[in-house]
Amino acid sequence: MTNEDVRTPASSQRDGAPASSGNGEAGKSIGWHKAYVEGSRPDLRVPVRQVHLTNGQSVTLYDTSGPYTDPTVDTEVRRGLAPLRENWIIARGDTEEYEGRPVRPEDDGIKHTSPRGGLRNLDAVFPGRPRQPRRGRAGAAVTQLAYARRGDITPEMEFVAVRENVAPEVVREEIAAGRAVLPANVNHPEIEPMIIGKRFLVKVNANIGNSAVTSSIEEEVEKMTWATRWGADTVMDLSTGRNIHTTREWVLRNSPVPIGTVPLYQALEKVDGRAEELTWEIYKDTVIEQAEQGVDYMTVHAGVRLPYVPLTANRKTGIVSRGGSIMAAWCLAHHKESFLYENFEELCEILAAYDVTYSLGDGLRPGSIADANDEAQFAELRTLGELNTIAKRFNVQTMIEGPGHVPMHKIKENIDLQQEICDEAPFYTLGPLTTDVAPAYDHITSGIGAAMIAWWGTAMLCYVTPKEHLGLPNRDDVKTGVITYKIAAHAADLAKGHPGAQEWDDALSDARFEFRWEDQFNLALDPDTARQFHDETLPAEPAKTAHFCSMCGPKFCSMKISQDIRREHGGSQTEVEEGMAQKSKEFAAAGNRVYLPIAD
Amino acid sequence: MTNEDVRTPASSQRDGAPASSGNGEAGKSIGWHKAYVEGSRPDLRVPVRQVHLTNGQSVTLYDTSGPYTDPTVDTEVRRGLAPLRENWIIARGDTEEYEGRPVRPEDDGIKHTSPRGGLRNLDAVFPGRPRQPRRGRAGAAVTQLAYARRGDITPEMEFVAVRENVAPEVVREEIAAGRAVLPANVNHPEIEPMIIGKRFLVKVNANIGNSAVTSSIEEEVEKMTWATRWGADTVMDLSTGRNIHTTREWVLRNSPVPIGTVPLYQALEKVDGRAEELTWEIYKDTVIEQAEQGVDYMTVHAGVRLPYVPLTANRKTGIVSRGGSIMAAWCLAHHKESFLYENFEELCEILAAYDVTYSLGDGLRPGSIADANDEAQFAELRTLGELNTIAKRFNVQTMIEGPGHVPMHKIKENIDLQQEICDEAPFYTLGPLTTDVAPAYDHITSGIGAAMIAWWGTAMLCYVTPKEHLGLPNRDDVKTGVITYKIAAHAADLAKGHPGAQEWDDALSDARFEFRWEDQFNLALDPDTARQFHDETLPAEPAKTAHFCSMCGPKFCSMKISQDIRREHGGSQTEVEEGMAQKSKEFAAAGNRVYLPIAD
Repeated sequence: MTNEDVRTPASSQRDGAPASSGNGEAGKSIGWHKAYVEGSRPDLRVPVRQVHLTNGQSVTLYDTSGPYTDPTVDTEVRRGLAPLRENWIIARGDTEEYEGRPVRPEDDGIKHTSPRGGLRNLDAVFPGRPRQPRRGRAGAAVTQLAYARRGDITPEMEFVAVRENVAPEVVREEIAAGRAVLPANVNHPEIEPMIIGKRFLVKVNANIGNSAVTSSIEEEVEKMTWATRWGADTVMDLSTGRNIHTTREWVLRNSPVPIGTVPLYQALEKVDGRAEELTWEIYKDTVIEQAEQGVDYMTVHAGVRLPYVPLTANRKTGIVSRGGSIMAAWCLAHHKESFLYENFEELCEILAAYDVTYSLGDGLRPGSIADANDEAQFAELRTLGELNTIAKRFNVQTMIEGPGHVPMHKIKENIDLQQEICDEAPFYTLGPLTTDVAPAYDHITSGIGAAMIAWWGTAMLCYVTPKEHLGLPNRDDVKTGVITYKIAAHAADLAKGHPGAQEWDDALSDARFEFRWEDQFNLALDPDTARQFHDETLPAEPAKTAHFCSMCGPKFCSMKISQDIRREHGGSQTEVEEGMAQKSKEFAAAGNRVYLPIAD
Repeated sequence: MTNEDVRTPASSQRDGAPASSGNGEAGKSIGWHKAYVEGSRPDLRVPVRQVHLTNGQSVTLYDTSGPYTDPTVDTEVRRGLAPLRENWIIARGDTEEYEGRPVRPEDDGIKHTSPRGGLRNLDAVFPGRPRQPRRGRAGAAVTQLAYARRGDITPEMEFVAVRENVAPEVVREEIAAGRAVLPANVNHPEIEPMIIGKRFLVKVNANIGNSAVTSSIEEEVEKMTWATRWGADTVMDLSTGRNIHTTREWVLRNSPVPIGTVPLYQALEKVDGRAEELTWEIYKDTVIEQAEQGVDYMTVHAGVRLPYVPLTANRKTGIVSRGGSIMAAWCLAHHKESFLYENFEELCEILAAYDVTYSLGDGLRPGSIADANDEAQFAELRTLGELNTIAKRFNVQTMIEGPGHVPMHKIKENIDLQQEICDEAPFYTLGPLTTDVAPAYDHITSGIGAAMIAWWGTAMLCYVTPKEHLGLPNRDDVKTGVITYKIAAHAADLAKGHPGAQEWDDALSDARFEFRWEDQFNLALDPDTARQFHDETLPAEPAKTAHFCSMCGPKFCSMKISQDIRREHGGSQTEVEEGMAQKSKEFAAAGNRVYLPIAD
């Protein structure tokens, strides 16, 4: 897989530059394009983003955008994506289709007979091909963890090995040891497999979801594809309003990345928002409903135990996790231990049957700098450690969620304790936010903490958008959140010395030093904005080949002076001549002068 | 100074809320207001930002915005600010006014007789009151370092002690030890003194400056006041185009914060951009020109020595500092040691006469992840250590500039080495940028590194805007850069356990938990954007007192549930009742229910 030839995409995929790549000219291959790297079998095609540079080289980048950026694939939101993994799942022969749980009006939040009857918006029902749910046969262990433990390298594992540029055996080992998860519900065959673990690239999750106050199904599907377009590795659908089941169906059928949920939110809708009326039966029914739809991982707040609730009473900001506060309210109302904690083993059996991955929620995470690393938080973490051990007994893949609001000097303790207590299970953190004082900029307050904690071992980062604490993110906020977190993740990959991570930086810096502006844009995390910012001051086309930019103007460009120094300095003459051969002609044409006089 | 009463502003200053504070109503004191804390003498009034909360409490924040946010002060850009420090300087009796160097057309970049003659824009000449330049009398040591060493606590030192809420003796000690600088040219009496050192609040510098390609004088003055409005502690005027002298005059006369420059840029203009034609005499003349105008600190790239230039030949991005590349070009052209290095002692004498602070430039800083922490960079740092020792002999206050592009795992080595080599002189770093792959988001790539290096001891951070590497920052970019860096600085203050730093976070988190939306906005680093983001989803006025927000809607608000838990949980009943007394009435009026049913 490390072979250069293998990495080269088939020529038929070369001219697949999306409109936003800034290169619509047919036949010209500069820009970035969807490509595929084939594995050991023809149906194992791993998507990559291939950036073709003006100097003839190309750079291969990880790609999360799904078939939407492949102009040869005809995607249609009402039909859903092709079930990429279906044959792999069927071929294993350890799952079966079954009738499944009937979808009821209350799944979409309709409890009472309404004058309009049934779903508020009947057009919203997903029109794609009907499919019966699938689950593990009795006695079969159908999780990637079970396969890895018995030594099997599944097509999913090979897929991520190609994606991560590592040996498949490394993937199997990490999953078998519980240090990585490969979330892949048997009912979500549309996903392109990905892996979450500290030995792999740091991943980013984007949250979407409507609420009672605003937003529609279509918007949520659009947010999902938009988030993956910019690099989200997984998406959590946190919808809490109406049409919750239907929204999720649309999102799942159209998602190339694993989808996570918090089943408790929907369960609460089913009891009309009265936490005390929640029961294990209603919760369990909701988990099965979502598992049959194909949810790949579920946040379960089973660590919020009755005795921990009083530990939050003197906090500055109490319980800030929605799931955590619902469970705490339930525990207090009944003066009983959490039904999630009490029924955790049965829950493991259900998740195992669909290969749903646990994301053990940190319901008691700190919501302010003052509450960071307190007893409530760490008491819950110790319980998550216990639950992790139980989940592994049931072959359920498991990751652990982490905070929250934490000042920089208290971040490392979080990852160190989590790794110790949870046997190195992947840590999945929200930020952490390193100060409380910047609402409207919490993508930045948290991006700082996220980069640090990922460097120290966090496997996946849950993004935070500029709207955090203030409102629901719109399209621009989702993009800003994802880009900020891709920066944090990549900065961590660099700091961890992840193999190959720096090649991307090197390629971009080479382009920068050699004034290959188009290459610099195309290699950027966000080519569109980079190009737009450049063009704001120097819009003309020649400025894209200029040996200076608007920052310093032609007289002061340090890069230009620096190139001149290289040229003058004998020791590196050969290297310079080789490396800049392509540029020398234009440079000479411009008089070969470092400083251009300014007209009076 | 730690007395609460002292911190309370005079009532006459209370209703000075700027329009942007969202509270224009006369007589209503909620919002934020300019106030002053008086020192030991009536002419020592330290500006603060006083935030009056709806619960009757108030929070005092550091304020850099100058008289512009004081509605009782009539500022006029053509007249300049009042010379706050003038009497203090005169009273010391160790400086004298003198004729000064005549201002010549070439100071503004006009070399040849132009058909239009003289300055391109004659209106641009600063019309404010003429003032003769001032310098130390022969034999007098007129720097804050000299005063501190001999045990004097100057009004400037007392001013910063009040500002930082520490004892004046701490300020004096830190300056005397060279661990802090108080940049304050005797010709810049308009500034409100501030201090840069690791025992004080982390500071932020914003760069402005026109270039040959774009922007005007008026824009630069406006950028300066705009940057300080959002929290810039110093501003560097990096103008390189025409009207360079005149632009600086306007900026200085209107700036409440210290102004830094890179005299080499202007010197190069005087030789028409031909680095090899630079001489010590032209450079010296430029330094005197700028010192007479009142520049408070100057970046001097005296560490770029001839033998270090070849060390950059095999770098990925060569020399990326403009000053560094100019000096390297000069060294190579003449095959001689740098004239800055050779004449450093004479330069010290000049700077000492005006109390100009050195910012010893890192001309060989890495411009890419690949070049971080290399031999060129650290060779220069060792020379900066030597120069720091010499500067101190001449009583010149000195800080040291740092990189650049550095991956997270290589950041700490930078600050540790700098502190060791430079006797703990204040470190002043540009970011560092933790990855190269995100042009258009380099405020974020660098904000991450900035927060970390500041935690570890960097005293001042040079901001990076979203336009870095792409173009000149506009007004929005300046604001985004400053806010991002204030976040990094404050996150570092928290991590360093700076006394009082967390009070700001605590006040905001209290407001958040108690749904005091207006207080949350007014305490925010950027109240305008926080309010705007909230209003995008819930614009109506009642939503500002609502016990939920658009993120979760009324049914899912964890804070609300959490408050309910507090109310139910006996142990904290009293506390809850006290803390939420103000809110209980509205809450009860709404039915006192945690979950509101949604209409069918």
